[in-house]
Amino acid sequence: MRILGIDPGLQCTGFGVIDTEGASMHYVASGTIQTSPKDGALLPERLKVLFDGIGEVARRYQPEVSVCEIVFVNVNPQATLLLGQARGCCLTALVAQGLPVAEYTALQLKKAVAGHGRATKPQIQEMVRRLLQLPGLPGKDAADALGLAITHAQVSRTTTAINRVTSLQARTHAAYKGGRHY
Amino acid sequence: MRILGIDPGLQCTGFGVIDTEGASMHYVASGTIQTSPKDGALLPERLKVLFDGIGEVARRYQPEVSVCEIVFVNVNPQATLLLGQARGCCLTALVAQGLPVAEYTALQLKKAVAGHGRATKPQIQEMVRRLLQLPGLPGKDAADALGLAITHAQVSRTTTAINRVTSLQARTHAAYKGGRHY
Repeated sequence: MRILGIDPGLQCTGFGVIDTEGASMHYVASGTIQTSPKDGALLPERLKVLFDGIGEVARRYQPEVSVCEIVFVNVNPQATLLLGQARGCCLTALVAQGLPVAEYTALQLKKAVAGHGRATKPQIQEMVRRLLQLPGLPGKDAADALGLAITHAQVSRTTTAINRVTSLQARTHAAYKGGRHY
Repeated sequence: MRILGIDPGLQCTGFGVIDTEGASMHYVASGTIQTSPKDGALLPERLKVLFDGIGEVARRYQPEVSVCEIVFVNVNPQATLLLGQARGCCLTALVAQGLPVAEYTALQLKKAVAGHGRATKPQIQEMVRRLLQLPGLPGKDAADALGLAITHAQVSRTTTAINRVTSLQARTHAAYKGGRHY
């Protein structure tokens, strides 16, 4: 399964693509989409850059599923509003490409990648490097995006395993019930 | 000039299309795009409905320019974040259709449509009805969207008039300077 992770931001949105096969994960690509407020670019123009950038990444790497970080309210309400608009643009770009979107919080990402919720940015970068066997540390935004893809890979694996057990139990239970009825 | 106004909201986004020719304005269409949280629809799915809805309106009515209301921080930060994401989706849908986007605040809309910044929603609806000679009151969201289109029509007319005066002054000034030089 190919997963595209997106760490939304107005100035800098990180993206990361990984392939999973069973328990193994392979790095495919990562990077950032920058939308500068320089040259007097207004919000609609900056969102256009973000929309086009995510579209290009999706078309180039053809992921089957995408993941976008759930953002939270900031101490600065104006910053919250801007981040919200950037995230709205990212989600829109993903669904416009026909991609299903999974959502995780930074806390879920930290727990999945580093094993605990108090992991720092450098710890996330280091764990992403190790898990994907990268030759060097990924940038912070790209590391978060790759971390989201890893989180989704782990959740999918666990969910698949749980479903397998549940379906096994259901079959056993059905057989047992059947045994009582006949 | 055909103008598409958008009043962004997650549950209900209003749209309004008008044609302008000199000082006259004509109603073309208006309505709402609803994205219900019922049936357990998650945010990405709801934004998809909004993105597709705006795209459909833009393709059907072929506006030359769009207008989107500038939203503000709400007392409820979580509501601010949701509204931000909905607005980000609306802006993205407009720029994805290749439309230039003008932005006005609710205060600018009220001043342009009703003549003062304390106008109530029903007053805006009534003024929009009168300005566009509608047979009945438009709905609140559609009225706001039509009001944004009217605001842009007025601003464009004023800007054109100012540019005409400025260019006339510049020509006069250039001629005067020319007179001094030779």
